Amino acid sequence: MKIPVLEIFGPTIQGEGMVIGRKTMFVRTAGCDYSCSWCDSKFTWDGSEKDSIQMLEPAEIFDSLKEVGGNKFGHVTISGGNPGLLKQIDSLVDLLHQHQIEVALETQGSRWQNWFTKIDDLTLSPKPPSSGMKTNFTTLDYIIERLHKEQDGHFSLKVVIFDQEDLTYAEQIHERYPSVTLFLQVGNDNLEANENESLLSDLLEKYEKLIDRVMENKLLKDVRVLPQLHTYLWGNKRGV
Amino acid sequence: MKIPVLEIFGPTIQGEGMVIGRKTMFVRTAGCDYSCSWCDSKFTWDGSEKDSIQMLEPAEIFDSLKEVGGNKFGHVTISGGNPGLLKQIDSLVDLLHQHQIEVALETQGSRWQNWFTKIDDLTLSPKPPSSGMKTNFTTLDYIIERLHKEQDGHFSLKVVIFDQEDLTYAEQIHERYPSVTLFLQVGNDNLEANENESLLSDLLEKYEKLIDRVMENKLLKDVRVLPQLHTYLWGNKRGV
Ligand code: SF4
Ligand code: SF4
Repeated sequence: MKIPVLEIFGPTIQGEGMVIGRKTMFVRTAGCDYSCSWCDSKFTWDGSEKDSIQMLEPAEIFDSLKEVGGNKFGHVTISGGNPGLLKQIDSLVDLLHQHQIEVALETQGSRWQNWFTKIDDLTLSPKPPSSGMKTNFTTLDYIIERLHKEQDGHFSLKVVIFDQEDLTYAEQIHERYPSVTLFLQVGNDNLEANENESLLSDLLEKYEKLIDRVMENKLLKDVRVLPQLHTYLWGNKRGV
Repeated sequence: MKIPVLEIFGPTIQGEGMVIGRKTMFVRTAGCDYSCSWCDSKFTWDGSEKDSIQMLEPAEIFDSLKEVGGNKFGHVTISGGNPGLLKQIDSLVDLLHQHQIEVALETQGSRWQNWFTKIDDLTLSPKPPSSGMKTNFTTLDYIIERLHKEQDGHFSLKVVIFDQEDLTYAEQIHERYPSVTLFLQVGNDNLEANENESLLSDLLEKYEKLIDRVMENKLLKDVRVLPQLHTYLWGNKRGV
């Protein structure tokens, strides 16, 4: 069963979330059921790169990973878009595991897949109000309940924070799922910036402000506040 | 049993290692059996702040944490110096656990303590050649074997990298303990810098170089490469 793939690159570091800093390869799938206002990978779903989508079998993806990454990796991150839409990711995960390669994946949690339980590092990133999207909590509750019972690997929650409303949303998420580690990530609304130096100081300022607010917050105790390290290093550049 | 304490501060984020970004309080103990050339907390052992050391009972430390951090934290990091020298940390850990507070601790791994098995996030940071120190591998082997068997929480290895020799040392560590997650941390030898902007670009350049070298390295597969986030935010300032 073929998978729609837009990019395969690496090894590089994972710049964000639960395995931040991890040496990994990236496989980016096409297609998303959301359309977040500040999406940093609109090209995966807005049609602009439709002609670059390759329909690949898991074995072809594996070959391509080996071609690009050689013998230098033991971890693959499947990103999107929303790879959680694709039933056929299942056999890719199995194939990678057969080769002792660990798998990370991020999805907003709008749809359940049985293969979620096999992912080594699964990030659920429900979208806060600033995205313009609405969370279906019936679905998210179901996903988290099943993961609690059945998951082999690790999973965590991640919320991107742009404003005070988003922080209130994060509080609700933390209260609803208190036993799941919650990552708060600094939002980047400066996606067009080409000049890395001003982007960097802007992002650092935002990071410090977010830290200040979270440190003062009694409801947000067991949280981790992180930036996107790749934007510090490479700005908004793709494929690094 | 009293504990020699130099600083209690927070909540702030943990800027490095296995729980990077975590909201935490810090308790810094005095005293170290090493004297690393690039130690960023020499004041804990070089006598310069001898007069600031307070001998505190665990209950007094807990009161002080509450006084400073109020009801805003659920995690405490014990740092040094080398807190692994102090048998009496045991009852502090128990006291924090009684209050549902998780505990992280970092030690170079030169000495075993029975309470290591109770630490929720234990970082072993053996020192590479650039430090001028020599690792006692008999001791480190013993510690890691016991942790594998008995530890309740999580533990990881962290090596600070300044040069190529340090990277070779990290390879040896990774080969010797393949199942323990290894964090590689960018070394900061610019401890006197007061001007944060030039320090930042220097640190980012070093981070990128380290990433490049690790990405090309076949022996360093399952590793995480991280900076010290607090130096990006606050330079070499203490107590933040
Ligand atoms: S869910 Fe992710 S990929 Fe989809 S629109 Fe939102 S940010 Fe973009
Ligand atoms: S072990 Fe840590 S505290 Fe001790 S001298 Fe080395 S860097 Fe400093």
